[in-house]
Amino acid sequence: MTYFTNVDKIKFEGASSKNPFAFKFYNPEEKVGGKTMEEILRYAVSYWHTFTMDGSDPFGAGSMQRPWDQYSGLDLAKARVEASFEFYNKIGVPFFCFHDIDIAPEGDNLRETNKNLDTIVSLIQDHMKDSKAKLLWNTANNFTHPRFVHGAATSSNADVYAYAAAKVKKGLEIGKELGAQNYVFWGGREGYDSLLNTNMKLELDNLARFYQMAIDYAQEIGFDAQFLIEPKPKEPTTHQYDYDVATAHAFLQNYGLEKHFKFNIEANHATLAGHTFEHELHYARINNMLGSVDANQGDPLLGWDTDEFPTDLWSTTLAMYEILQNGGLGRGGLNFDAKVRRASFKPEDLFHAHIAGMDAFAVGLRVAQSLIDDNVLENILDKRYETYTTGIGLEIAQGKTDFHKLEEYALGLGNIQQESGHLELIKATINQYLLQAFAK
Amino acid sequence: MTYFTNVDKIKFEGASSKNPFAFKFYNPEEKVGGKTMEEILRYAVSYWHTFTMDGSDPFGAGSMQRPWDQYSGLDLAKARVEASFEFYNKIGVPFFCFHDIDIAPEGDNLRETNKNLDTIVSLIQDHMKDSKAKLLWNTANNFTHPRFVHGAATSSNADVYAYAAAKVKKGLEIGKELGAQNYVFWGGREGYDSLLNTNMKLELDNLARFYQMAIDYAQEIGFDAQFLIEPKPKEPTTHQYDYDVATAHAFLQNYGLEKHFKFNIEANHATLAGHTFEHELHYARINNMLGSVDANQGDPLLGWDTDEFPTDLWSTTLAMYEILQNGGLGRGGLNFDAKVRRASFKPEDLFHAHIAGMDAFAVGLRVAQSLIDDNVLENILDKRYETYTTGIGLEIAQGKTDFHKLEEYALGLGNIQQESGHLELIKATINQYLLQAFAK
Amino acid sequence: MTYFTNVDKIKFEGASSKNPFAFKFYNPEEKVGGKTMEEILRYAVSYWHTFTMDGSDPFGAGSMQRPWDQYSGLDLAKARVEASFEFYNKIGVPFFCFHDIDIAPEGDNLRETNKNLDTIVSLIQDHMKDSKAKLLWNTANNFTHPRFVHGAATSSNADVYAYAAAKVKKGLEIGKELGAQNYVFWGGREGYDSLLNTNMKLELDNLARFYQMAIDYAQEIGFDAQFLIEPKPKEPTTHQYDYDVATAHAFLQNYGLEKHFKFNIEANHATLAGHTFEHELHYARINNMLGSVDANQGDPLLGWDTDEFPTDLWSTTLAMYEILQNGGLGRGGLNFDAKVRRASFKPEDLFHAHIAGMDAFAVGLRVAQSLIDDNVLENILDKRYETYTTGIGLEIAQGKTDFHKLEEYALGLGNIQQESGHLELIKATINQYLLQAFAK
Amino acid sequence: MTYFTNVDKIKFEGASSKNPFAFKFYNPEEKVGGKTMEEILRYAVSYWHTFTMDGSDPFGAGSMQRPWDQYSGLDLAKARVEASFEFYNKIGVPFFCFHDIDIAPEGDNLRETNKNLDTIVSLIQDHMKDSKAKLLWNTANNFTHPRFVHGAATSSNADVYAYAAAKVKKGLEIGKELGAQNYVFWGGREGYDSLLNTNMKLELDNLARFYQMAIDYAQEIGFDAQFLIEPKPKEPTTHQYDYDVATAHAFLQNYGLEKHFKFNIEANHATLAGHTFEHELHYARINNMLGSVDANQGDPLLGWDTDEFPTDLWSTTLAMYEILQNGGLGRGGLNFDAKVRRASFKPEDLFHAHIAGMDAFAVGLRVAQSLIDDNVLENILDKRYETYTTGIGLEIAQGKTDFHKLEEYALGLGNIQQESGHLELIKATINQYLLQAFAK
Ligand SMILES: [Co+2]
Ligand SMILES: [Co+2]
Ligand SMILES: [Co+2]
Ligand SMILES: [Co+2]
Ligand SMILES: [Co+2]
Ligand SMILES: [Co+2]
Ligand SMILES: [Co+2]
Ligand SMILES: [Co+2]
Repeated sequence: MTYFTNVDKIKFEGASSKNPFAFKFYNPEEKVGGKTMEEILRYAVSYWHTFTMDGSDPFGAGSMQRPWDQYSGLDLAKARVEASFEFYNKIGVPFFCFHDIDIAPEGDNLRETNKNLDTIVSLIQDHMKDSKAKLLWNTANNFTHPRFVHGAATSSNADVYAYAAAKVKKGLEIGKELGAQNYVFWGGREGYDSLLNTNMKLELDNLARFYQMAIDYAQEIGFDAQFLIEPKPKEPTTHQYDYDVATAHAFLQNYGLEKHFKFNIEANHATLAGHTFEHELHYARINNMLGSVDANQGDPLLGWDTDEFPTDLWSTTLAMYEILQNGGLGRGGLNFDAKVRRASFKPEDLFHAHIAGMDAFAVGLRVAQSLIDDNVLENILDKRYETYTTGIGLEIAQGKTDFHKLEEYALGLGNIQQESGHLELIKATINQYLLQAFAK
Repeated sequence: MTYFTNVDKIKFEGASSKNPFAFKFYNPEEKVGGKTMEEILRYAVSYWHTFTMDGSDPFGAGSMQRPWDQYSGLDLAKARVEASFEFYNKIGVPFFCFHDIDIAPEGDNLRETNKNLDTIVSLIQDHMKDSKAKLLWNTANNFTHPRFVHGAATSSNADVYAYAAAKVKKGLEIGKELGAQNYVFWGGREGYDSLLNTNMKLELDNLARFYQMAIDYAQEIGFDAQFLIEPKPKEPTTHQYDYDVATAHAFLQNYGLEKHFKFNIEANHATLAGHTFEHELHYARINNMLGSVDANQGDPLLGWDTDEFPTDLWSTTLAMYEILQNGGLGRGGLNFDAKVRRASFKPEDLFHAHIAGMDAFAVGLRVAQSLIDDNVLENILDKRYETYTTGIGLEIAQGKTDFHKLEEYALGLGNIQQESGHLELIKATINQYLLQAFAK
Repeated sequence: MTYFTNVDKIKFEGASSKNPFAFKFYNPEEKVGGKTMEEILRYAVSYWHTFTMDGSDPFGAGSMQRPWDQYSGLDLAKARVEASFEFYNKIGVPFFCFHDIDIAPEGDNLRETNKNLDTIVSLIQDHMKDSKAKLLWNTANNFTHPRFVHGAATSSNADVYAYAAAKVKKGLEIGKELGAQNYVFWGGREGYDSLLNTNMKLELDNLARFYQMAIDYAQEIGFDAQFLIEPKPKEPTTHQYDYDVATAHAFLQNYGLEKHFKFNIEANHATLAGHTFEHELHYARINNMLGSVDANQGDPLLGWDTDEFPTDLWSTTLAMYEILQNGGLGRGGLNFDAKVRRASFKPEDLFHAHIAGMDAFAVGLRVAQSLIDDNVLENILDKRYETYTTGIGLEIAQGKTDFHKLEEYALGLGNIQQESGHLELIKATINQYLLQAFAK
Repeated sequence: MTYFTNVDKIKFEGASSKNPFAFKFYNPEEKVGGKTMEEILRYAVSYWHTFTMDGSDPFGAGSMQRPWDQYSGLDLAKARVEASFEFYNKIGVPFFCFHDIDIAPEGDNLRETNKNLDTIVSLIQDHMKDSKAKLLWNTANNFTHPRFVHGAATSSNADVYAYAAAKVKKGLEIGKELGAQNYVFWGGREGYDSLLNTNMKLELDNLARFYQMAIDYAQEIGFDAQFLIEPKPKEPTTHQYDYDVATAHAFLQNYGLEKHFKFNIEANHATLAGHTFEHELHYARINNMLGSVDANQGDPLLGWDTDEFPTDLWSTTLAMYEILQNGGLGRGGLNFDAKVRRASFKPEDLFHAHIAGMDAFAVGLRVAQSLIDDNVLENILDKRYETYTTGIGLEIAQGKTDFHKLEEYALGLGNIQQESGHLELIKATINQYLLQAFAK
């Protein structure tokens, strides 16, 4: 069956196209710095936002109009699978991602739930044979059901912990079965609402043990996906344990787990934590822990995760700069963890939104590559830090000095000559690259 | 004397210029929609950020390196005037703006202060004869001196109120003398730190009386400048009375003053108040109160007024869209109430920063004009609200209905057909216009 | 039927009681400043948070365990009514509040919905005969159903506008029937998500016309309730038109509606708008527009409306201070627009939470009355503003001066003597009053 | 010479005292849980806020009126030392803290600066002989002077790095000389304004090397103070490297430095980073890294570090709860890193403010000890996590299980019984303890 009857395969038509169902900037075949856009960008569709969510918000019921609305239960799940592969094909993404309960309904008990999952996973496998789309990552939703009201691997209730473990076990098996490139841990309700009734030490110890068991089990079954932690602050618990990349890094080091994980970094989670998107990417990159990206954007005037499709070209440029500096995303990808606005409720809006996001990151890629080709930022850094390449600076950088030598040197200094940071000029330069990117 | 010895007059060199001392997008002579860029944009330099401020912040001493650093007192004030006209000329702006104490040092008493002002105002007048630069607006700084610790026109101390009045009186006289197009009231410390020791009603009554006296005096001396209120929240008092445009609008209406004022809208003040820049412009525009603009930008991750030079092209586009819809700025202008970062301390950074901002608004102008030329947003609105042009909708819009008729109509309705808001598509369209603006 | 079988009527047992089902500070009969606590505080229960909401959040399904969970449809609605009056009686509140769809399910069309409402309103009326509980206010929920996706009285769709009008018409009729003291307008989705597809002027004009029709209809049917506007920023639309009290005040004045409305002020809405709770109360009070209060509190580290039960004694003290200075709440009341946390899912938590809130405002009342009895803040103000009671200050306050006289006066001033604001001392004093309030 | 001529030694007079110059709740001799309040609370005065700062802010000049205003240069420095010991004695604190440039003026070069320091350190030593006041900690101000415009140990300029090292070297020597209990590293400008011109990896590597040299030098000279890192986000650089405790913990672990440091936790820095004060204390505590506390509070509606004197009794209670659970502060203390408001400019306000803060933490101590004495929160935790003490939960807690066993267990589970978190009840209980604390 065809679900998106009025939309054909989305094609690249170039910057001057007036066709709302065409890419203006994302040309999958086009090479940028030696690889095709498709190879570099590794776009993925989020199953939950595109096929499962209904547009409800804390003040309103579902608004989305979907061509599978007439189904329910397993039939609904099957229709969504069918529609999803039509969508991957038409929008032209190489990857998709899902939580367990996105794809199959929960049964009356765990056994039934797993059976439902088996049915749908098998159906997905069938579709994958005829499709270019692969599984970028899967994960377990251990936060929606009321049993997870106090968390999952950090629940105050041991039964819930066991239940969560069983769901992750199944998730790892599904990942292996579908050839997932990565497996993601997003904290869900791993955090606390109030310290007044929380044993944080026990909860964190339990969380570390949970991760270790997941590592062991993946190894046991030969599932060699990259494990990813996705940090997020403030939602849904008041204090999420994986507040940001640095906090999760502290946790992993504290429990000796840092070699087993990289990070899945979401733009909107970064800004909610008080950081820029590029800061989180950069921090992960210099620690060799940049694994994958949840591509979206927030509203800086709102205090929650709005998961908007990314259209801020400044931000996509700086993000792509980090990704290119990282040598690409490896097994990771750019997953649109983004949802159409509640008022964009037509099926066609799913295409418009993905086109908007895919074009925006394609622009970012082109601008970032130009900056790299011209050594724009590299030259700035080389000049700015050149005092560390000779003399006392080199000794500092090589760890060959001490406070005695440094004091002696400092006592001999006159007025220190400082260079301007020239930030306004740098920003103007990036704007110029942006405006020129598609003018050639 | 020449102060900016290494910089010549900044020229337009086009989008591909590699000259850091050239405009890439701002071409003053170029016509956009029938007027030149210079006529539409009406750029102004802020005296305080460009010639007076030293780069100090709450954690550090002044860092700026200025060619007038060797002077002090009135000599410093005179050097700054000379340098300022060199700067206006080289950067090519038609306007400048100042507070009283930006241009002349305070004396031991009010009489001396006024005398210092007279000296400098006279010098400015001389320079204006040989310059294209005019005074966009002036204002009184009634917040820096410790006498204003509890406010000025809302001080708890009547002596301070009188002193503030005398300073504004002098400001109006100076404005008249220099042919100012506008006179600005920015609240400074008009607000409160805590309600616990504040008589808000008395303070607001006093403020209204203050404004009335200013109106009366301007009329008396035949100073026909547009009066502007510049809203701002949170700084320097915890609760500034002119929190945002709507709050100031409520105040003006409450005291019957709304006919005498328009608004001077600052981008960073808008975002600190929880609004977009364009929201504040739009609100003022539809109330016929958009007077002038303080062009800058904030950092959405920081909670104070960072007064950065504007480089966000999305924001300059939406701002210019409002300004063009307003039929331009009238007597107002685009004043760069923006300061170079503390680490951009070289004189040349003043040029880089203004070029960055002037280019950014020139881009915004071009993109906004293209959107208007193609009726992009107008068509969206016409379609979206078309139900108000016939039938029950027209009756609603004309005020010709009542709850009885509406209920009767509603009882007859089946499922209401809704149109999608298509926000993602609209955003992608604007990005496309942006990237095409200088590609033609 | 009895729903809360394990809980008896909550009694006052005093500050040292260890009974979790007893008031420690709220003693309804106790007189404070000449009236009983019950008369002053006028507590109300919110139907939606207490009887309707299920504990779902954007990341999770409903968690609440309720003794009426076995019912559905109209039976559920009836069970809730019965349970609600048991709750009002046991917790001992004189008032309750509801939206239309809180009390009765929507039917397949407006006519059926109204019929359902009639059934339940009639049932409520029956229960009111045997209960002390009265209707503080009712309102129409014009935001949950997907038809309101673009707003109601500010919808881009005239059919929706008509539908919303019909719902408010019915709401006014219900209010009259049940003897409501007030009728509330909370904006719901009256606002916009993006200016890019919004005709703000038309929407605001339509909203003003809507209010006028509501006023006319209430007058027509002889419903003399106080009309209240409840401001709120940011949720559910990105920019709510009634952002805060000042913004709504500007709107009302702009359309000549200010005589017909007072404000229903919610603590958490105040803080989301960047103001303290007491600021919003104070602003309304000095404009004679303080109508009623939605008593709750937010989490200052989270960026959305958390609607927590109020337990911050500092805040309840300052709120009660404003309310007492207002001469009480008149027809208004203190409505707990507050919900138990998702993890407080037991029926007994509804009692714990209301006890917490009722005790907290009772404490606030006692402290505020003590501050008033001792003229603590009044003395501070009298001293701080005394310069406005004689000489030039009196002339200022009486509007008998002008810029000439003020300048002449200012020229004669030496150093102005300033008084300290002593804010730290004032805060310590309030803490002392708080800690002594129940120590006597 | 006597500086605070109108104020005598502040005495405890009890909760009903009307004397503004008396403690109402802080009774240094009184025992709480076996130790005196003085021993537990270990209060310290911040030299910078109390003796050095002048009340200037980004919008205004200094407002403070100080009895040493007539002095300048070294004379001013000496007067402040004399005044400081009078203040320590009169307010009755056992500790003080300073940055190098708080106590002595910078000279024309480092050698002179050090000489000035020697002069003043010697004077401080003299005063310490006759005073109970000890040095809680000292630190180097490596952020105010323009040479630190790009940071100090993370400067882009190696000369600045050397200069900073020399200043810390001197600081360690001074600390040893004066018997400091701790040495503090607050990041100052260790961070970045923009990633566009920042080599974050080099800067962090350099910072780690800097710390190692400091550790080595302290060991060399036999200075056995506890080293403390004070995290802070957002100010003065846009991204401070020591954003919060977890971020600094990640850094320390990453460079193998975690054994050498504990944390100095400031309340206002916690909230700026999106955490509660108690969260930061708790995180440090469970990692055995809670070293010392900067006691103040912020304004949750403002986005910068307001450094207000702490008066929020809820917050002081939860902070003291963490401190008592930590077994006290060890070598650390409660340092009032707090400044009187700009409008509280009289010398007497310094006393009022410290009394307010010292009383507030004394109240917090009493309430926290009562909660501990009655096992209020301990009982809640024991019950809430009891499933981890037997059966599958105990196996989880002991690390004796795996995903196979957990899945098997989960498959056998029916509906999981959940306990309510009862947060509203817990909050009401704490309010009750607070209101009863001084009622006995
Ligand atoms: Co995500
Ligand atoms: Co998200
Ligand atoms: Co401005
Ligand atoms: Co500003
Ligand atoms: Co409310
Ligand atoms: Co609310
Ligand atoms: Co501090
Ligand atoms: Co601080």
